[in-house]
Amino acid sequence: MNDIAPHDVRVEPAALAARLSDERAPDIVEALNEEAPEVAAAILLGLPMERAIEVLDQPELECASEIIEMLPRDRVAGFLSGMSADRVTDVFREIEEPGRSDLRARLDAETRGAVDRLSAYGEETVGSLMTTEFVTVPGTWTVGQTLDHVRRVEKTRETIYAIFVLDPRTRALTKAVTLRRLIAGEPGANVLSVAAGRAPLAVSPTASREEAARLISKYDLLALPVVDAVGHLIGIVTVDDMIDAMVEKQTQDVQRFGGMEALPEPYMDIGFLTMIRKRAGWLCALFLSEMLTASAMQGFEGELEKAIVLTLFIPLIMSSGGNSGSQATSLLIRALALHQIRLRDWWRVALRELPTGIVLGAILGVIAVVRIVAWQKLGLYDYGPHWPLVAATVGAALVGIVTFGSLAGSMLPFLLQRIGFDPATASAPFVATLVDVTGLVIYFSVALLILRGTLL
Amino acid sequence: MNDIAPHDVRVEPAALAARLSDERAPDIVEALNEEAPEVAAAILLGLPMERAIEVLDQPELECASEIIEMLPRDRVAGFLSGMSADRVTDVFREIEEPGRSDLRARLDAETRGAVDRLSAYGEETVGSLMTTEFVTVPGTWTVGQTLDHVRRVEKTRETIYAIFVLDPRTRALTKAVTLRRLIAGEPGANVLSVAAGRAPLAVSPTASREEAARLISKYDLLALPVVDAVGHLIGIVTVDDMIDAMVEKQTQDVQRFGGMEALPEPYMDIGFLTMIRKRAGWLCALFLSEMLTASAMQGFEGELEKAIVLTLFIPLIMSSGGNSGSQATSLLIRALALHQIRLRDWWRVALRELPTGIVLGAILGVIAVVRIVAWQKLGLYDYGPHWPLVAATVGAALVGIVTFGSLAGSMLPFLLQRIGFDPATASAPFVATLVDVTGLVIYFSVALLILRGTLL
Repeated sequence: MNDIAPHDVRVEPAALAARLSDERAPDIVEALNEEAPEVAAAILLGLPMERAIEVLDQPELECASEIIEMLPRDRVAGFLSGMSADRVTDVFREIEEPGRSDLRARLDAETRGAVDRLSAYGEETVGSLMTTEFVTVPGTWTVGQTLDHVRRVEKTRETIYAIFVLDPRTRALTKAVTLRRLIAGEPGANVLSVAAGRAPLAVSPTASREEAARLISKYDLLALPVVDAVGHLIGIVTVDDMIDAMVEKQTQDVQRFGGMEALPEPYMDIGFLTMIRKRAGWLCALFLSEMLTASAMQGFEGELEKAIVLTLFIPLIMSSGGNSGSQATSLLIRALALHQIRLRDWWRVALRELPTGIVLGAILGVIAVVRIVAWQKLGLYDYGPHWPLVAATVGAALVGIVTFGSLAGSMLPFLLQRIGFDPATASAPFVATLVDVTGLVIYFSVALLILRGTLL
Repeated sequence: MNDIAPHDVRVEPAALAARLSDERAPDIVEALNEEAPEVAAAILLGLPMERAIEVLDQPELECASEIIEMLPRDRVAGFLSGMSADRVTDVFREIEEPGRSDLRARLDAETRGAVDRLSAYGEETVGSLMTTEFVTVPGTWTVGQTLDHVRRVEKTRETIYAIFVLDPRTRALTKAVTLRRLIAGEPGANVLSVAAGRAPLAVSPTASREEAARLISKYDLLALPVVDAVGHLIGIVTVDDMIDAMVEKQTQDVQRFGGMEALPEPYMDIGFLTMIRKRAGWLCALFLSEMLTASAMQGFEGELEKAIVLTLFIPLIMSSGGNSGSQATSLLIRALALHQIRLRDWWRVALRELPTGIVLGAILGVIAVVRIVAWQKLGLYDYGPHWPLVAATVGAALVGIVTFGSLAGSMLPFLLQRIGFDPATASAPFVATLVDVTGLVIYFSVALLILRGTLL
């Protein structure tokens, strides 16, 4: 994939497999990511089966779907049933038909059932992140029985650090036991004696990934149970899957805030055309919106001709609006993501941003006035006979624009969340564009107010 | 702290404590965060000791240092020795002298030693995040002995899911055992029989928090050992402390990228003056730099007077440079943070951004030319007799500015990392400011080149 592969490309896959087989799975993944899928597949086949499955189970493996499609059909079933069902589901999402149906038919009945259920959930939901390999015991068991059971099933479960206790009759989730409490318990006592006092926290499979991340992070959980409408345990989200999802989400957020579509792969692995496509879309959309500034300027053409001095401050004024807007947006994106603020608090935020914007605008306004007065008095530049009025225009416009920027920037994340989008899709360039056009109108309106009869 | 407290303020602390004592610790923290420190301290004193300690141990508790200073001096030692040493260290960082020395003197010798060692590490290092409460056993023990030991010390250790095996002679860290493998092992076998094959991953206490986060996330660890120069285990970083640090870092990154100092507390809890201070600093710095645009415009005053039509496109052109720069910066910030790209790859990135920028600039340039031609031909606006040259100027300037924006935006994170800063301190507004001034100079230079002899 990468044109500067660190390994000598003529090394035989078998030799590479032998060299890699003692490495940690994430390190094997890194090595495979440097190879073409056919080479990676050959290397995988040379690894011990258990190792190869561990490698395929890592979400960081980039061409997992291509690699799996290249594996010999008689061996692929063995790999797939060894992998965790949630990972197989993720990989299947990237395989085209008819390959997917063919592979699905080769799965054992249990895995196939799990994959079918998991693939029904949307990509941003808890359902698509959960694993179906967890440990449950009925509430009638003892600590000793539970420990024996855990020992037996340990190898086939993604985590055994949380054990879930079901109602023996309804099979609904009633309690959670940590392995830590379990091993400290009396072997003869009922398993419920070491369970946490209250019912376990749980989420619905249709909840958002962020909700699961928030609960895991707030309550320091190693696994979060996912239950259906009648309280049956259908999966768990483990802390390591959650961290992977968090890191991915963080990358997406930063890229979106930077004003582009999130990239599906690392920077260096993205093809040139994909890169252009992911960046050009937003850039063009912003460009087209920003064209309104040209229209606004055309509308004020008369004023511009009469008072060219006004044009000198256009970049300064516009950027101040954009900067204050981008500050407010970044603040509110995080406050909403961390549930520090709810949708209904929007007016409280607006009431805070209004005075904040006025004060920030006034600070910048004073700096601008000082600068104009200084340049004029020091003879560095001549702003014309009406320079005190020009200074007043720039200062007053800054107060208006920074206030508008802070307000608009802080309200945008609420608006996005209200209409069902992730507030993190708000981007700094978008806020700047929003504020630029308005900023020009505010500037020229203030100018008309202050300079009418003199310059205008 | 909050002026809109959800609880009736006249409810007695004792009654509140009784109501809260059955809640989960993170929920008690949320309730306490709504109260003044003196009320929170009174509530804490009403909770069962074990509960109160669990609450104080949560990093989300906002006024922990104020609360602890308000606790009766004869009881405070009990709370502090119950808390984990890393949390006590964090809280002590926020307590002023002489209060800190007074509290330190009340600690038992073991906790005091741990706190003294931990507080020597810088805030951004692994050392300040690690806990000293971990489980170690000598390599001569059996699985059964180890399990018995784990059962005995379970209550006083932050995690028991990773057990560290020391060389019986040198006491250096040799292996790590997961609790999961331990309970599956033969009780009579040596503990090393269930240890991972290779030496455990470890970091130095002076490594950055990001390095620990990267290792925990890449290798799906529940705890990462921290070793000193001679290989002695001095602490561990647990996955839940890591997640808290990741969330905090993510908030800081978004706020910094938005162009402001990171806020130490949630949006609604920040005082008005602190909010102004955190935002005004960057806003003023950007404003002062952006003043260079006014100087640049003043320098081209003659051209502006002769060709006012050029001013119409200034906002459009400047924002395009800023947007392309902000895209490139956000891409590279993440690629560097995730170690997808190293410092020495800067030239490879530059070689990618150069053609990317040219193509993106050409796309925007074509759109701009089409728009000017369309408006002219449709009679929507008259760009003057030399309108084809004006269109050519805008189009060519866009290619230059977007290329410069992409290059400058992508190189800035490298530059920051090179001079020892976190690349995430690069902000979208800063990149925009950087590109704005240069953008104006490029625009007017292209105009001079194309329009000399006609408009100019």
